Amino acid sequence: MKWWGWGVDGVSFHHEDKPRLAPFVLEKVGIDITTPAANAPLTFDQLDIPAPRVDDALRTALAGVVGADSVTSDDMERLVHTFGKSVRDLVRIRRGQLGRMPDLVVYPATTEEVAGVVDAVVAADAVLIPFGGGSNIAGSLEVPAGETRVVVSLDLGRMNKVVEIDEEAGLALIQAGAQGPDLEEQLAARGFTIGHFPDSFSHSTLGGWIATRSSGMQSDRYGDIADITRGLTMVMPGEVLTLRPLPSSSTGPSVREMVLGSEGRLGVITEAWVNVKPVPEKRVILGYFFPDFATGLRALHEIHRSDATPLVARISDERETQFSLATSKASKGVSKYVTKALMAYLVRRGWDLDKLCLSFIGYEGSRSHVALQQRLVREIVTRHGGIVVGKGPGVLYDQKKFDTPYIRDFLLDRGAAADVSETAAPWSKLKPLYDEVIASAEKAFAEIGCQGYVMCHLSHNYHSGACLYFTFAIAHEGPDVLDRYDVVKRAIQSAFIRCGGTLSHHHGVGVEHSPWLADDISEAGQTMISRLFQATDPGSNLNPGKVVHTGEPGISVLSNPAS
Amino acid sequence: MKWWGWGVDGVSFHHEDKPRLAPFVLEKVGIDITTPAANAPLTFDQLDIPAPRVDDALRTALAGVVGADSVTSDDMERLVHTFGKSVRDLVRIRRGQLGRMPDLVVYPATTEEVAGVVDAVVAADAVLIPFGGGSNIAGSLEVPAGETRVVVSLDLGRMNKVVEIDEEAGLALIQAGAQGPDLEEQLAARGFTIGHFPDSFSHSTLGGWIATRSSGMQSDRYGDIADITRGLTMVMPGEVLTLRPLPSSSTGPSVREMVLGSEGRLGVITEAWVNVKPVPEKRVILGYFFPDFATGLRALHEIHRSDATPLVARISDERETQFSLATSKASKGVSKYVTKALMAYLVRRGWDLDKLCLSFIGYEGSRSHVALQQRLVREIVTRHGGIVVGKGPGVLYDQKKFDTPYIRDFLLDRGAAADVSETAAPWSKLKPLYDEVIASAEKAFAEIGCQGYVMCHLSHNYHSGACLYFTFAIAHEGPDVLDRYDVVKRAIQSAFIRCGGTLSHHHGVGVEHSPWLADDISEAGQTMISRLFQATDPGSNLNPGKVVHTGEPGISVLSNPAS
Repeated sequence: MKWWGWGVDGVSFHHEDKPRLAPFVLEKVGIDITTPAANAPLTFDQLDIPAPRVDDALRTALAGVVGADSVTSDDMERLVHTFGKSVRDLVRIRRGQLGRMPDLVVYPATTEEVAGVVDAVVAADAVLIPFGGGSNIAGSLEVPAGETRVVVSLDLGRMNKVVEIDEEAGLALIQAGAQGPDLEEQLAARGFTIGHFPDSFSHSTLGGWIATRSSGMQSDRYGDIADITRGLTMVMPGEVLTLRPLPSSSTGPSVREMVLGSEGRLGVITEAWVNVKPVPEKRVILGYFFPDFATGLRALHEIHRSDATPLVARISDERETQFSLATSKASKGVSKYVTKALMAYLVRRGWDLDKLCLSFIGYEGSRSHVALQQRLVREIVTRHGGIVVGKGPGVLYDQKKFDTPYIRDFLLDRGAAADVSETAAPWSKLKPLYDEVIASAEKAFAEIGCQGYVMCHLSHNYHSGACLYFTFAIAHEGPDVLDRYDVVKRAIQSAFIRCGGTLSHHHGVGVEHSPWLADDISEAGQTMISRLFQATDPGSNLNPGKVVHTGEPGISVLSNPAS
Repeated sequence: MKWWGWGVDGVSFHHEDKPRLAPFVLEKVGIDITTPAANAPLTFDQLDIPAPRVDDALRTALAGVVGADSVTSDDMERLVHTFGKSVRDLVRIRRGQLGRMPDLVVYPATTEEVAGVVDAVVAADAVLIPFGGGSNIAGSLEVPAGETRVVVSLDLGRMNKVVEIDEEAGLALIQAGAQGPDLEEQLAARGFTIGHFPDSFSHSTLGGWIATRSSGMQSDRYGDIADITRGLTMVMPGEVLTLRPLPSSSTGPSVREMVLGSEGRLGVITEAWVNVKPVPEKRVILGYFFPDFATGLRALHEIHRSDATPLVARISDERETQFSLATSKASKGVSKYVTKALMAYLVRRGWDLDKLCLSFIGYEGSRSHVALQQRLVREIVTRHGGIVVGKGPGVLYDQKKFDTPYIRDFLLDRGAAADVSETAAPWSKLKPLYDEVIASAEKAFAEIGCQGYVMCHLSHNYHSGACLYFTFAIAHEGPDVLDRYDVVKRAIQSAFIRCGGTLSHHHGVGVEHSPWLADDISEAGQTMISRLFQATDPGSNLNPGKVVHTGEPGISVLSNPAS
């Protein structure tokens, strides 16, 4: 992963093959992306990297546990482990505003070594921050600015193996540091898949998914990571938690569900037993068009209530649909003709193309099952006035699904900051919440005096509600861009809570969402989580300041004006 | 509910219309059930009920909260609130071994009143035990024998209303004291069902289901209560926890999953938002026969892995199948002929009728969906050498499903003690676990010198495993029957843990299962739960001694010889 942005070195977003994108961005955000990038990040040599705090005794102890080669205070290593990938993190690293960095990075190879590291760190009254893929966008990796103790980043990168597959039970024991492609490749060799594909898949780890309560694009069928994770091992100060793989149990308050979402505050997850399924016989993603977002939401709800069981069902609002169409590659020949003819047909049907909404619905299983599901869904789509567009958009969806994070660096290079916020709410509250979020974001753009854009898609379906996933961008490159970003982010988060949504559906709490925790789960709920953290980690050695907003001075967090 | 046994006064199990039962019980357990009941429970007048501890200030405070009419120290009220319905509870109450009883019973009507009760109890350093339907069989209602403080039983019986239905979201807000039939009737009036049908359905409450992590017969389709519960209100000392209804969220360690299974140790659940679904167009339960248990398990596993989505899928082992056939009513006319012809056919096919296993698989949804599911399942059943028996056994299953608990009183009247233990384990471990449990129970019967019987069915299916539900009975009526029962119960629970199963799939922990908690979730997991309880309730005023085995002298709990 690039130290200054998303993804693999040498790979980046480019607009040249997407002729409609530049005019779209110019109109919506007021930025000309055809001009050369004016805001390139600083180079590594330009950075002013503060010297690490030194604790020779701790370093010696850690070297004794993991080996001297696996403990480092190298500047590049420290830099890579300082930030996640929120827009706040990207802006700071590009500008060289490094803040408080980890002092040491350790690479343990086994659960026993992790236990040795945890105990050594606690004994030295240092701070431990577990590091998986570094893709977090809620500030879960942030070192508290005022932290005076030595800070150790524990990188699980050496623990990336599928240890065991129980084919009969459909369970795999996987080390927590395995990134998405790592583990899928090892599972595929035996004919299995975990079916968990978050946008961050290429650069995030199983341990990170569990620690932040991740969801994937196919969670409608495979479940969220909370459902997929059946057992795990977590190293805690002086003890190791071992939860055996169980399909379900009635053993009091769920310890498994205390570990899920704990973001390093209870310990370090080192391996987990997860559900795996045979690679399906058939998989297909189809595109659909709806005349407007409200209609599409109703159709997706009816599909979810029906006997149909899609793999994934998403719908973009008209704003995101326009963005998607603008990022499509240039149509040529037959494809161009078909698109034009389709749009003309929709206009003849009376559709307002400015309201058009693009939907993706996927199917998986045996051939007959997939065929049946497609038919059941088509009937519902048609009844709601939608149309099937076919496989073309679906293939595109599969190709593009992991590329989206690259676009934020491209925009930052050109003076715009973009990020995402997502929520989940009951079906009855989705449309009012959507309207309120859009209005709140527009009002925030006006307040900060920036041209901005906000768009949304429904990404996950549940019996009682769904996830709405918002993307927003503001055109600003001044030194106060993060203050302005905060105004927009706060407006969106507050609208979630006000309208019955949760502060985050699958990105975790970190420090960016913690100001809304008490509003979401009530003061008493926040207190329960605090008590659990304090009782487990009385010295605050484990990733302090995350999840529960403790208000330490110097931590750069959003403030919730309602609190 | 009867104070001395299961169910409604005037309703009890009888054998006269089941001609094959008496010979079966005589052969298997050595008891002649055709002789008059020799072990009737004591009558209320025969009981020696200890006087309640008096705290006039507390009683006055409680009366100030709930009204004088809703606080009582009446002996019958106290008696009803002393026990659950484990065989241990039934034996003790029948013999008048009442032990430490609650001193006061209060009936609050609102969340605010519950908050007033909780705060008054904590202020007086008394003990609070929430009481729903009183059906618990793990000892979750037990007053610690050595408890010197005043004990208050909080009965939620007045809080039995469906408060609100959000039809669009498929959510209902229901008070925690609503019993199964209460809430189903109120939901049915609006065309909805919660779909949660534990064996105890007729006499258990929503709050009790949540507090003990209940599962129902249709949980394969509707989910366990942990899935169904989307939001809730719980009164804690000095504060009220409010979790809004959310389909999913990423807000750190799950507070909802800390409340689930908390058995009154964190507070009193007063209402919950639960998933409700429209009453389905069609519902059918079919009977199937398999040549042996191992084959049936393999078939059920394949059904669960297939594209089929049954409502319920159960299979009894040959022991429980023989019991089921023995409890069938006398066949007459055509039915008798069909049964004989069917058995003759199976013999001709080469089946050993002593190995025969009865399975029930149910379907729900639209007519076409139900028809398709039946066809998908029939193909798999047939491929495994099983046969479809038809709707007859399914109708019987639906009729009998809530009657099973009555049989324990019938057997106790005649000198046999029967109870249940259930577990969940990965598919790969189910058959070895089953074999080990049967062998361990048989060995225990020999050890205690009692004739006994143990039988099993698979009751719930998950991707990675299933629940095995064991029923066992011993023929003994001496004063040490509970000591002998303990030997068998211990043997079964220990086999669960040894073979990779959990201590309980859906009956909770209470005091009967707590000796195995650390074996199940590791010492570190038990410590996490303990810390949560201690931090929430430092004075141990909330249902002390449950879930975590604290080893107070005088609590009659099983001991885990491995600990």
